Amino acid sequence: MSLGEFNLIEKYFTANDSGEGIALGIGDDCALINIPLNTSLAVTTDTLNEGIHFFKDTDPYLLGYKSLLVNVSDLAAMGAQPYCFTLSITLPDNSEEFLDGFSKGLFTLANKLKMPLVGGNTSKGPLSVTISAYGLIRDGKCLRRDRAKEGDYIYVTGTLGLPALAVDLGYKKLSLAEDAFDRCYKKSMLIEDRCSFAMALTEVSVCALDISDGLIGDLKHILERSGKGAIIEAELLPKPYEFALYNLDEDYTDRLCLSGGGDYELLFTVPADKESRLFELAESHQVQVTRVGVIKKCGLSITKRGRILDYSDNSFKHF
Amino acid sequence: MSLGEFNLIEKYFTANDSGEGIALGIGDDCALINIPLNTSLAVTTDTLNEGIHFFKDTDPYLLGYKSLLVNVSDLAAMGAQPYCFTLSITLPDNSEEFLDGFSKGLFTLANKLKMPLVGGNTSKGPLSVTISAYGLIRDGKCLRRDRAKEGDYIYVTGTLGLPALAVDLGYKKLSLAEDAFDRCYKKSMLIEDRCSFAMALTEVSVCALDISDGLIGDLKHILERSGKGAIIEAELLPKPYEFALYNLDEDYTDRLCLSGGGDYELLFTVPADKESRLFELAESHQVQVTRVGVIKKCGLSITKRGRILDYSDNSFKHF
Repeated sequence: MSLGEFNLIEKYFTANDSGEGIALGIGDDCALINIPLNTSLAVTTDTLNEGIHFFKDTDPYLLGYKSLLVNVSDLAAMGAQPYCFTLSITLPDNSEEFLDGFSKGLFTLANKLKMPLVGGNTSKGPLSVTISAYGLIRDGKCLRRDRAKEGDYIYVTGTLGLPALAVDLGYKKLSLAEDAFDRCYKKSMLIEDRCSFAMALTEVSVCALDISDGLIGDLKHILERSGKGAIIEAELLPKPYEFALYNLDEDYTDRLCLSGGGDYELLFTVPADKESRLFELAESHQVQVTRVGVIKKCGLSITKRGRILDYSDNSFKHF
Repeated sequence: MSLGEFNLIEKYFTANDSGEGIALGIGDDCALINIPLNTSLAVTTDTLNEGIHFFKDTDPYLLGYKSLLVNVSDLAAMGAQPYCFTLSITLPDNSEEFLDGFSKGLFTLANKLKMPLVGGNTSKGPLSVTISAYGLIRDGKCLRRDRAKEGDYIYVTGTLGLPALAVDLGYKKLSLAEDAFDRCYKKSMLIEDRCSFAMALTEVSVCALDISDGLIGDLKHILERSGKGAIIEAELLPKPYEFALYNLDEDYTDRLCLSGGGDYELLFTVPADKESRLFELAESHQVQVTRVGVIKKCGLSITKRGRILDYSDNSFKHF
């Protein structure tokens, strides 16, 4: 069965097209969206390419979910309320099996976050997904990279390093139990979004980003933009259960956490006197939050039980 | 010389990052944009893939220009005022020669339209460009596909068919003078934007789209959404100078105009009693406007000097 572009869009991508504030959704040359008073629109866009950002033959459900997740992770990093999104998908063919799985994964997250799909396009070529996601920031209350202050504590949500382990397993850089890759890769695609916690976080924080290129690589963006330094205490890094399960070497797992990338967890700073309120918010949102360091005047060191770690930056780079 | 993603962005893609209403541009997880009172945001996204939407080894300047043009063409089709855009570019390598040309083409159009680039990403893979473009619609004054009325005249801007001729030449479906392909292809990449005319057009029209898939294929979207029919008079089709220059067969050029696609001209309807005002607006904006037909109650026929043309739809489809 051959479907033209318009039928494809109609069949798979109009599932949730509705939402307050969407004056005109899919079907015209543009979508029209309304923005409430005293509100800015947060705009982000991210691409996932086969063979670069995900392995060939990835389950389309996982890809659909993660394509949106990496974008809402940027919305969370600003403390924005998810609003709507557009989808540009390039496909080698119009496999309905692929589209069925992909759209289910995509809308699982979109519907949870009440984000209507408002527009997009399909085209032919090597598998690639670009999503642009939109969020609302009310009264200028947002999390920025340039707002870290000396003495702020540094925190991360969730655990770090599992997506990087999945990549190493996928490239056969190490071998573990037979189902280890499937288990780790699936978890690294179905990462939980931090949107509602991030909105609450604006009560105690003004500075955050999401970790896509590795904790240290991304922390450097905060430090550069804020004109500050930091100490990271590696023994505090929140590691996933699988690191113990597979009995992995500690130096190796430190490296996965520090520079592995693909975590899509929040890295943020909070003044020391607001830590107890932070932990209340984390508990009420059932989000694991771990203090991993402190903002300093300048310089960046990574310590392990009080000793300086020799750390060379190998954060994920495309080029 | 190898540049990381952040350096690439900084070197080539911050050239015009400023603009009223942009609260936060490139460099954080999201851009933050403000929307004036009583204004909706028009949102569109479009992708160009090498080998599908443009030929391999296309001059990067032309590609940069056209990547934005196809998106602002959607803004024009709504009557929106261009506001800002994001860029997602996938590159096989980080050729600075490519990036230099591409960014010059891109910003030539962006600066003309005063559209700041507010965000984006670069990644590695087969050459592909996805832009999301944003425009402002004030007080609900916009051009929609579902607003054609019986008796409205149908118009197009510019000329039709040259981009389709360039494609035929590129695929060697016909052979003409040695420089014919270069001449036609360049013109089909450097299409003039219709933004300022489209905003003026909202005075006399409520119904438009841009022709990307061919006049007839796109007219059908208006007819379906408006629940109407139409007659198109093929002898009225505005043809480019090159069709006469190369002494092309009339049936062939009719087909290029009717179903060739890639024109990125506006197709719109205007009530008959507003035609004289339309032509005043067209003249003041120095835009060629041609009446090519009329909206009917139902059905779609194409006539040539009073006789019905046997026309089978072969509008451009990706699948």
